[in-house]
Amino acid sequence: MGSAVTGVPAKVRIVEVGPRDGLQNQEKTLLTEQKLEFIRLLADAGLQDIEVSSFVHPQWVPQLADAEQLFPQLPRAANIRYSALVPNLKGLERALRVNVSRIAVFTAASETFNKKNINMSIAESLTTIGAVVKRAAEEGITVRGYVSTCFVCPYEGKVSKEKVFDVARELFNSGVDEVSIGDTIGAATPVDVEETAGGLVERFSADRLAMHFHDTYGMAVANVFASLRLGISVFDSSTGGIGGCPYAPGATGNVATEKLHYLFERLGIQDGVSSPRLQQAVQYIQSQLRSS
Amino acid sequence: MGSAVTGVPAKVRIVEVGPRDGLQNQEKTLLTEQKLEFIRLLADAGLQDIEVSSFVHPQWVPQLADAEQLFPQLPRAANIRYSALVPNLKGLERALRVNVSRIAVFTAASETFNKKNINMSIAESLTTIGAVVKRAAEEGITVRGYVSTCFVCPYEGKVSKEKVFDVARELFNSGVDEVSIGDTIGAATPVDVEETAGGLVERFSADRLAMHFHDTYGMAVANVFASLRLGISVFDSSTGGIGGCPYAPGATGNVATEKLHYLFERLGIQDGVSSPRLQQAVQYIQSQLRSS
Repeated sequence: MGSAVTGVPAKVRIVEVGPRDGLQNQEKTLLTEQKLEFIRLLADAGLQDIEVSSFVHPQWVPQLADAEQLFPQLPRAANIRYSALVPNLKGLERALRVNVSRIAVFTAASETFNKKNINMSIAESLTTIGAVVKRAAEEGITVRGYVSTCFVCPYEGKVSKEKVFDVARELFNSGVDEVSIGDTIGAATPVDVEETAGGLVERFSADRLAMHFHDTYGMAVANVFASLRLGISVFDSSTGGIGGCPYAPGATGNVATEKLHYLFERLGIQDGVSSPRLQQAVQYIQSQLRSS
Repeated sequence: MGSAVTGVPAKVRIVEVGPRDGLQNQEKTLLTEQKLEFIRLLADAGLQDIEVSSFVHPQWVPQLADAEQLFPQLPRAANIRYSALVPNLKGLERALRVNVSRIAVFTAASETFNKKNINMSIAESLTTIGAVVKRAAEEGITVRGYVSTCFVCPYEGKVSKEKVFDVARELFNSGVDEVSIGDTIGAATPVDVEETAGGLVERFSADRLAMHFHDTYGMAVANVFASLRLGISVFDSSTGGIGGCPYAPGATGNVATEKLHYLFERLGIQDGVSSPRLQQAVQYIQSQLRSS
């Protein structure tokens, strides 16, 4: 199933996380209408898997406090899958009330990061996730699992790949259909990807894995290419590369969807995305975040 | 000769081209004193191969018109090699008058680009280069050769790797000691690098090749990594990533030296560069180019 270029998948799926992972770190909170326009442009560009918000308590992420208002207004299309981050059963109940059909749960491969991020040990968060996935399944909702800090932890340094394998295994055992492997601080190199993601592919098969790279030090495209070579074909990204820390000018967050699309297009890999329409979404979101 | 990581060189050499390739595209022309301070900071950061200016006619590149003033004032150190771009014998005579000890000559792998860039066919430019290298050798000056548009030409599209092999062969035959393979518009992917640079390594050996990537679409680090895997260990870059077109906001030029240094450091590859000192050079040049 190679593309015109040997050794990489013929087709990939982009999971657009801009409306959630991109906007949650912005100093500026967009209006619901602005988010809806952004999402409409993303859908028009051909993105079919869009993470639109989070049901984390609004106190923690005020930028996404309008999740309940957003969902019922999303532009519906049979081929588009919208999802939302859900931290626990309470968040799931909120998501259920607005008929979310796919959710994402999250934990980490570093104990210290997980503790600081969500104030739970990894084991505790896996227990919570187990309950959420079970309840979601009863409602016919599919679940993706995120693992943060799979390569380097800002507190603990290099993360052992065995820890990543263990957490991914637990997530699959709990019933998630896809695990997204996160390089939360953008510190991984292609060699790290070959080692950790290579081991994951051997254990769980490439088609259940997604890679989630941040572009903090400019490594993300190199890491995506290394992942493609491992047969991985699902990548998280954020249109406009939004999501950088607002207090660190120039620091980038999620790898930009347009960078991935450029790579895929040049490699002859189908991603379903239209370049000029994606450019419209880039321009829209960047202008909305710039203007006061 | 592997590093801690297998399959990549233990040591690399960065050719810092910021003062030349970076500054020649700036709308703003820096003062000679600002350039000297930038070069001093680059040298302090551990960069030992610095292309500081160009002896192209000042009419074409007014930003670098002070090459004669710059050279005699450079901070001298036994371990630092300063070089300058030289387009022809007239430029070489200017360079000789200020005791330049290393020069770089340039041509392209695309006829249309070469014609539009320097108004010569590739064959004509190789003749000029032959005369320049011969005269330089008489004066004990070493010569590097640049080949532009080795992957994609903005006018002709994809460039055949055979054409690149031919031009590189001609340059080596003329007496240059290193050929720098340029992705002038930043359009190459790692697969292109494997094909073209892979063929070059087979023909001319990795230690006579340098790679010169622009980061226009964010592919540069991925391309550098692909080159490392081919055994190539010389890379051109520009501190601060300066060199983007001033009329295209956000468009980047040469790959940033700090991105390469990050990659090398994380891979355990020695490049001789000090991160905090490099950061000082980044901050200096970016602030000088921003301020009016």
